[in-house]
Amino acid sequence: MANKNGVEWSIRMGDGSSMVLESEPESKYRMMRLWDHFKGLVIQFVIRVWMFLKKAWDLGVDDPRKFFHCLKVGVALMLVSLFYYMRPLYDGVGGSSIWAVMTVVVVFEYTVGGTLYKCLNRMCATFLAGLLALGIHWIASQSGHHFEPYIMGISLFLLASATTFSRFIPVVKARFDYGCTIFILTYSLVSISGYRVDHLIQIAHERLSTIIIGTCLCIMTSILVFPVWAGLELHLLIPRNMEKIAQSLDCCVADYFGHDNEESKKNLQGYKCVLNSKASEESMANFARWEPAHGDFNFRHPWKNYLKIGMSSRSCAYCIETLTSCLDSKNQVPESIKKHLESACMNLSTSSSNVIRELATTISTMTRSTMKINMAVEDMRNAILELQNDIKSLPDLLIQPLDHKEKNDVVLSEITVMSLLEVIPLVSFASLLIETASRIEENMVKTVEELAESGKFKQPKSEVKPKHNQTTNKINVSDEENMTAQVQGV
Amino acid sequence: MANKNGVEWSIRMGDGSSMVLESEPESKYRMMRLWDHFKGLVIQFVIRVWMFLKKAWDLGVDDPRKFFHCLKVGVALMLVSLFYYMRPLYDGVGGSSIWAVMTVVVVFEYTVGGTLYKCLNRMCATFLAGLLALGIHWIASQSGHHFEPYIMGISLFLLASATTFSRFIPVVKARFDYGCTIFILTYSLVSISGYRVDHLIQIAHERLSTIIIGTCLCIMTSILVFPVWAGLELHLLIPRNMEKIAQSLDCCVADYFGHDNEESKKNLQGYKCVLNSKASEESMANFARWEPAHGDFNFRHPWKNYLKIGMSSRSCAYCIETLTSCLDSKNQVPESIKKHLESACMNLSTSSSNVIRELATTISTMTRSTMKINMAVEDMRNAILELQNDIKSLPDLLIQPLDHKEKNDVVLSEITVMSLLEVIPLVSFASLLIETASRIEENMVKTVEELAESGKFKQPKSEVKPKHNQTTNKINVSDEENMTAQVQGV
Repeated sequence: MANKNGVEWSIRMGDGSSMVLESEPESKYRMMRLWDHFKGLVIQFVIRVWMFLKKAWDLGVDDPRKFFHCLKVGVALMLVSLFYYMRPLYDGVGGSSIWAVMTVVVVFEYTVGGTLYKCLNRMCATFLAGLLALGIHWIASQSGHHFEPYIMGISLFLLASATTFSRFIPVVKARFDYGCTIFILTYSLVSISGYRVDHLIQIAHERLSTIIIGTCLCIMTSILVFPVWAGLELHLLIPRNMEKIAQSLDCCVADYFGHDNEESKKNLQGYKCVLNSKASEESMANFARWEPAHGDFNFRHPWKNYLKIGMSSRSCAYCIETLTSCLDSKNQVPESIKKHLESACMNLSTSSSNVIRELATTISTMTRSTMKINMAVEDMRNAILELQNDIKSLPDLLIQPLDHKEKNDVVLSEITVMSLLEVIPLVSFASLLIETASRIEENMVKTVEELAESGKFKQPKSEVKPKHNQTTNKINVSDEENMTAQVQGV
Repeated sequence: MANKNGVEWSIRMGDGSSMVLESEPESKYRMMRLWDHFKGLVIQFVIRVWMFLKKAWDLGVDDPRKFFHCLKVGVALMLVSLFYYMRPLYDGVGGSSIWAVMTVVVVFEYTVGGTLYKCLNRMCATFLAGLLALGIHWIASQSGHHFEPYIMGISLFLLASATTFSRFIPVVKARFDYGCTIFILTYSLVSISGYRVDHLIQIAHERLSTIIIGTCLCIMTSILVFPVWAGLELHLLIPRNMEKIAQSLDCCVADYFGHDNEESKKNLQGYKCVLNSKASEESMANFARWEPAHGDFNFRHPWKNYLKIGMSSRSCAYCIETLTSCLDSKNQVPESIKKHLESACMNLSTSSSNVIRELATTISTMTRSTMKINMAVEDMRNAILELQNDIKSLPDLLIQPLDHKEKNDVVLSEITVMSLLEVIPLVSFASLLIETASRIEENMVKTVEELAESGKFKQPKSEVKPKHNQTTNKINVSDEENMTAQVQGV
């Protein structure tokens, strides 16, 4: 006898009946399996939690400012809660000190610009909405208690709808989105409270003063304790992205001609970060606009120009993206023909990435090095001409074998056909490379010059020895870090 | 005598002194100029405001659902304010009904998914934080009134810091960002109030119940009155972007071979919307995940697959971006050589865009048309082969003139050189076109098939006549709109 889960043992008794033996081993086995399953689940859960925590920890170790930010939020909250814990402060602002706590929680952002954006929006919107609500409430109260809710209700409906609609307008969305929410919030709170509360002006005043306390605390904490400036972040992000593009370009060409290794394979992917950087760049520029002068940046530093450079970087990244897809066909081209263009291509990629790196240095040091950039661009132009010449002389190479063969028309046509087809991937690769170089010259150089112009970058002191070694084509990382530290320290 | 602004008249008196005449016309002139300037400023201001309002109005006319959204917000606010205006409701929840109003203002988003995301986050976070705060408050109160503020303060500091840090983790950021804010907010409110307020549980209960009232009202309004589903938006956006890519591809190739007109110049730019669509697609998919089953979409509809299709669309868009930069060099290629590749290129672009449009139809009608897509892909493959053959036969064309000339080696090499250089832009263009086609086949077709698989798209009924006329290669717009209306109506 067998049930579906295993074997069942039975004993036949003397009276003919049979007794089923308890399949103890079976149930024990089941229990053990369940236990194992449970243990597995627990272990899996612990491992997952552990991995999650490890990832989170790595996130913070990568950029310790994230830890500092969390501590800052904690400190600001502790400070604002003193208004509740300390008798004299509590008596000063009364029960509505809870608004100060709320303000701190809602308003504190990672960057100074983000915090300022929210603080100023919150303060102005609260003030405006409060004033408006008091005014309309006064008008409504003149018309008698019976009409008051209708007037207040209709005005609330109209204002809320109009303000909500204004949030769809891109300019308003970018700069005053939070203010719109707070405007509706304050207007509805004050106007609705007005129906039941008599000392309305005191309430409005308390709300405003507590919000000012909260915002001031946030602004102080975010500016004075390890500030993270959105402007500086953008200022560092743009050259970093350019450096990534330069690396990708170098690695892509090196890979095409077989000079790839493990590290270059990794660096090749760098351009991908640049492809989708638009959103973060725009939000940084938006926040940077609210920041006061800090480090080398004035209040009206041309942050918009950084966005233009970002756009030109992306246009290069698109080209490199197409370029990398040529890597799939790199083995279709005969080595002999590849050899013919190799040095010119490598030269062009080196000189192009050199231009990008010079431009990145211009931005990160805020020093116009017109001469150096012009030289680098000149180098790049020469490399383009060299590559074009090498492409021009390709047919010689293709036809060369002919001189030693019989000059039969059929053979001639056959050989040329074969060679041209084989050459096409290489020629496409080369012309994409030229296109990338021309984008660098037309877009990137121009936008960086515009930034240098409008940002009033300083002229280089001719007596100062250039820090960056041009021949190695590498930005000295420690130099860049020093620079960063200096800018942050100011 | 002349002052800097004009001529000054003076009369010499009998005693030798001189008297300056008041230059009345001059001051009048100045006044008029000031007046004109002021008028100009006012007119400019009015015009600017008018333009701004007109733009805003157009925004709403383009998509009337934006108007509806504003009205919905107004209605929800009116409804929630009834809790204040109506005696029985007010007595039910007490003074904290203000929390319900706040919830509505803060939580109401444009899409159902956005509203649900915020509502659920707000509810769960409030519940969790309130429970935790009450628990820790109880522990603290056991340790005596003296230690209470320290225990509460330290726990607040630790929890706020940890929660703030968790917001940096991408997964948490995408799904629970708002919840984290509310968690800190509620915890600090309850724990701080606990120091001065005795009936803490009642406060926590009131806060939770008013928040539930507010969120339920928001959810009802946003689902029942003209709902805007983030999922449906994403479902419509992806095929629309694909259609734009198809148009851009067609227009780009037509432009290259001189078949451009005003409309095609405009359509050529369509791919640019796709380049930067990642952020909006991701936020839609994020919101869509919170939405219940609606229309043809189940609760667990594979929204992630839409993101993959979006990625493959962007990879095509990058290729087209590079393709359009070939348009600058279109006049460098001799017409005779261009003519040779024209029909093959046009053919490839038509068949490629046909594949894209078939895929778009598959998505928007949620019907797997494997046969049609296979046929279209087959067409595209044939077009690639045709183009490759035409490129192969290019050298014949280049060498043809030779047959009628003296077969001098120098001349041979010269002629071929000239021709190869002239041909290069065209060949690059053609190989980029082939690359685009192969990306469509490798990425787009595959990702759409994955979506059809995991989204359980229905098989086409063979007896139903296909609605879309394959030969014209155009999606019938009214059909698509009908479909949209149907999905929305469900």
